[in-house]
Amino acid sequence: LSQKPQILTDDGGDLNTKAHFDKRFKNLNIFGATEETTTGISRYLAIQLKKKLRYPIIAVNNARTKMMFDNRYGTGQSTVDALLKTMNLLFASKRVVVCGYGWLGKGVAQRCTGMGSKVIVTEIDPIKALEAHMDGFDVLPIKEASKLGDIFITCTGMTDVIRKENLLAMKNGAIVGNVGHFDVEVDTKFLLNDSKSVKQVRPNLDECILSNGKKIYLISKGRVANLIASEGHPPEVMALSFSNQIHSILYLLKNHKKMKNQVYEVPKEIDDQVALDALNSMNVKIDRLTKKQIAYQQSW
Amino acid sequence: LSQKPQILTDDGGDLNTKAHFDKRFKNLNIFGATEETTTGISRYLAIQLKKKLRYPIIAVNNARTKMMFDNRYGTGQSTVDALLKTMNLLFASKRVVVCGYGWLGKGVAQRCTGMGSKVIVTEIDPIKALEAHMDGFDVLPIKEASKLGDIFITCTGMTDVIRKENLLAMKNGAIVGNVGHFDVEVDTKFLLNDSKSVKQVRPNLDECILSNGKKIYLISKGRVANLIASEGHPPEVMALSFSNQIHSILYLLKNHKKMKNQVYEVPKEIDDQVALDALNSMNVKIDRLTKKQIAYQQSW
Amino acid sequence: LSQKPQILTDDGGDLNTKAHFDKRFKNLNIFGATEETTTGISRYLAIQLKKKLRYPIIAVNNARTKMMFDNRYGTGQSTVDALLKTMNLLFASKRVVVCGYGWLGKGVAQRCTGMGSKVIVTEIDPIKALEAHMDGFDVLPIKEASKLGDIFITCTGMTDVIRKENLLAMKNGAIVGNVGHFDVEVDTKFLLNDSKSVKQVRPNLDECILSNGKKIYLISKGRVANLIASEGHPPEVMALSFSNQIHSILYLLKNHKKMKNQVYEVPKEIDDQVALDALNSMNVKIDRLTKKQIAYQQSW
Amino acid sequence: LSQKPQILTDDGGDLNTKAHFDKRFKNLNIFGATEETTTGISRYLAIQLKKKLRYPIIAVNNARTKMMFDNRYGTGQSTVDALLKTMNLLFASKRVVVCGYGWLGKGVAQRCTGMGSKVIVTEIDPIKALEAHMDGFDVLPIKEASKLGDIFITCTGMTDVIRKENLLAMKNGAIVGNVGHFDVEVDTKFLLNDSKSVKQVRPNLDECILSNGKKIYLISKGRVANLIASEGHPPEVMALSFSNQIHSILYLLKNHKKMKNQVYEVPKEIDDQVALDALNSMNVKIDRLTKKQIAYQQSW
Repeated sequence: LSQKPQILTDDGGDLNTKAHFDKRFKNLNIFGATEETTTGISRYLAIQLKKKLRYPIIAVNNARTKMMFDNRYGTGQSTVDALLKTMNLLFASKRVVVCGYGWLGKGVAQRCTGMGSKVIVTEIDPIKALEAHMDGFDVLPIKEASKLGDIFITCTGMTDVIRKENLLAMKNGAIVGNVGHFDVEVDTKFLLNDSKSVKQVRPNLDECILSNGKKIYLISKGRVANLIASEGHPPEVMALSFSNQIHSILYLLKNHKKMKNQVYEVPKEIDDQVALDALNSMNVKIDRLTKKQIAYQQSW
Repeated sequence: LSQKPQILTDDGGDLNTKAHFDKRFKNLNIFGATEETTTGISRYLAIQLKKKLRYPIIAVNNARTKMMFDNRYGTGQSTVDALLKTMNLLFASKRVVVCGYGWLGKGVAQRCTGMGSKVIVTEIDPIKALEAHMDGFDVLPIKEASKLGDIFITCTGMTDVIRKENLLAMKNGAIVGNVGHFDVEVDTKFLLNDSKSVKQVRPNLDECILSNGKKIYLISKGRVANLIASEGHPPEVMALSFSNQIHSILYLLKNHKKMKNQVYEVPKEIDDQVALDALNSMNVKIDRLTKKQIAYQQSW
Repeated sequence: LSQKPQILTDDGGDLNTKAHFDKRFKNLNIFGATEETTTGISRYLAIQLKKKLRYPIIAVNNARTKMMFDNRYGTGQSTVDALLKTMNLLFASKRVVVCGYGWLGKGVAQRCTGMGSKVIVTEIDPIKALEAHMDGFDVLPIKEASKLGDIFITCTGMTDVIRKENLLAMKNGAIVGNVGHFDVEVDTKFLLNDSKSVKQVRPNLDECILSNGKKIYLISKGRVANLIASEGHPPEVMALSFSNQIHSILYLLKNHKKMKNQVYEVPKEIDDQVALDALNSMNVKIDRLTKKQIAYQQSW
Repeated sequence: LSQKPQILTDDGGDLNTKAHFDKRFKNLNIFGATEETTTGISRYLAIQLKKKLRYPIIAVNNARTKMMFDNRYGTGQSTVDALLKTMNLLFASKRVVVCGYGWLGKGVAQRCTGMGSKVIVTEIDPIKALEAHMDGFDVLPIKEASKLGDIFITCTGMTDVIRKENLLAMKNGAIVGNVGHFDVEVDTKFLLNDSKSVKQVRPNLDECILSNGKKIYLISKGRVANLIASEGHPPEVMALSFSNQIHSILYLLKNHKKMKNQVYEVPKEIDDQVALDALNSMNVKIDRLTKKQIAYQQSW
């Protein structure tokens, strides 16, 4: 911010929050911003609700070519990678508890199933819970799921998802990790500060011996496991995100004077173009609407 | 309409279109309407664009508990049922071409895969095409797919999806059906009128011998196969739709005076309640946000 | 048998058992027999153990192109068909208990999963149980599974698999069927004779109101559901079975004088030829070993 | 061998071959041996055919609790791990060619599908080819598959599976690896010696620029990728193998005097016990046959 940028590209909302509320930067002339994450957008919407947003922000995270692909296929795969690197245990036969069934949780649930695990989903949204149930997963409150899981992955962006009482109820040897946003999804303070002992047993894996004598394994201290304990998203999904970012930055540059101080979705034309570019790069051809079909679409 | 109803519940838009444009009914006092299908909503949006909508219409189809469940799990299953009833061929080893990858196409693709088939998707929307490609399906233009498929299912709501030239290019013995909306997705006129012979060989299955000598099998004359050739949606998904319908009708009754002449989404409270009722009926419990979590959600 | 056949082709072993132990047929000049089912072969092996086998029997069921395809893909699909026809309930969200994880149980478990159900497996063989567990299914004793299932399918060839006490423990509304061999896998006597009432509610589906007031639904009176309540195996898998049968009959005709009175496997050459014929009919090409590879295979 | 062991435990057959044919060891008093791999057993069977086997060898690899689990779930998972570690590309949207559809190929095909890839299988055995086709995979000769794949994994134990002409036909950027046995499955000599340039670009990944200008990436120089480029089998499957090994060694110690100089299968009792021990360690309970059921099994 001290470089006086005109367009901000943020990943989580820390930069934009500072640009809004840190007095040192109140005179910056910012055209607008783009945001990569669900978490960041939630924060801006809370600011917008208070009518304190100072410039337009394009929710790149919400682009269909970002959200549906990065969060699902990217994190799905890199979570498997993080689990392989930190534990090297067999996925088959394990019960994985996935907390949250948004795009992130869907991706993680799907890939863990694909590796042979049985998945339990916890949710607070009834529609997502119903979807998980219909998708063939067991849906349980975290209190019940705590007793059954071999591996726990939080995918929520929320705080306090796996709490002290849940950790104490887990089976000896359970593995706990977070791929949501901040390191507040799992009660890592309890694990790291209140355990009888904490010992790193593999890279990014701490063995915590609880007061009840059980060993619980914590991945990357509760910080985003798929970024810290693996190589992060594969390049193909990052290309989708970054393509949305650069197109959105150019859009802001061109249109910011006409835009209001609010959170904007990525324009549909940008989203479609990113998908077409990706398909072309993989040599996949699709159909186009014929004139007759366009006429049919517009008729009643 | 001759019964002078005050609220209309439509499935496809024929009733509401008539209520709008048939002069006999121009003096009806209609509070509002609800609509069960994607197709109907497309038609109302076209009318709304011309500013000719005469009363509010709630897009029940768009309720998440309708669209995500009825179109996907319901039609997915009943399409398999229709194929079993009309052909009783082995799904395993067959190549199924699914035209359209909306909720409907997703459901059909997923269930056909689940029965052992290999699925090819055709699309006109680049983002849906990319999703199908990432979901592990082959994505091809209909021209290429025509030559490869053993079974073809249209899931689009569009006209002219499988055309004369595609039918002529198919393998001998190919089976063609539609689970979209009207019987215009496949060129049934060509099949039924221009074939050398048309013979019903099993219930709802016509064998059409084309001019090039190939046998093509048409399910239920191109009309919605999963309703005509099977028992239709299972009761569990219809319960979700009808629960949205009755809640929306009650909402219209209570609120229609405050509503504008436009297409409305089903209110989120209704949608959530329908999901909660369904979960309860299946004895599935979920978590609720704690006070601490609600506070976190609203913070920045 | 009164027609004095020289080669018998049996499906279950009733014919061959009669040919062995019914005095009326003790003078028949039988060259040999072929057998279509696991159940039949078990019976012949028991007879062979007592050294009472009177002629060679080729275990067509054990041909890889029979057992791996008919029992798995055929019964897997036709069991789904039988469930659709008798109940038309949604597979998604249901918990299906599959008793037995042989080829039959594998096929049923896989297809029910493919239709969206959650599958529980019961087994008495520890290796099959471990395989089911590694394949992502819950493995439980029938006593525990009884309380959890919505649908129960026996796939064992054994008697007394679902017993009175299991039926009484089931949830109200549970559906019970058998795709194994005889109607002894489920205690149908208890259901049909000791219930407060038995009423046919759909074709091949009886509603039994137990003494404890619960409704249990029995498919096709416990007889092989996929043959009685559906159209049976698709033609593609029957072609594999029958191709093995005819080749085995011809083999018996040619070789019976050199064969001993024992159960024989289908010769590998027949099995391979059946597979090649099937692949050719579906236009699938495969590789052949090169001379260099054959030499490598034989070297040490 | 210079330590004069009495029981040999081999992995691939090099030790036993030397014990048989290296004159330095012709006077060793060896009770017997156990063998961990398919490859080793093939070699002993070739020796046995020449009647030159000098002591009994127990084919631990063939134990159901070894072969069905180690080769399938173990290598399936560790192959995914090796691909993640060497390339970190997105599995979703990629076409993976799996050469060979034995237990190994099945495991690799299943896990790559589970990670989102589309799988093509090549085979020389018609029954395995038919099974792959029925399991939903494309089956093609290597000549055709070469042009289509993004990633190639050999799973055969055979030599010369991916040859010079196949490598030249591949797409630019294709990745090639082997998880079979020796480094002869892919023509690595051509890749490493005849390329314009060979450069290590990531750990265990060489970029080979062919004479036709295409870049082909070779994993771990064609040596067993899942052992070299990943951490190898997860401990759970190794426990199954080693449990079979130790039981088989004890069996040899006790019974070797009664045994012939041939390849033996692991006794069923050992195999069953290993499975039961594994189930117990994961707290999975199963049913036992009742007296009534045992009687039924033995009846005809």
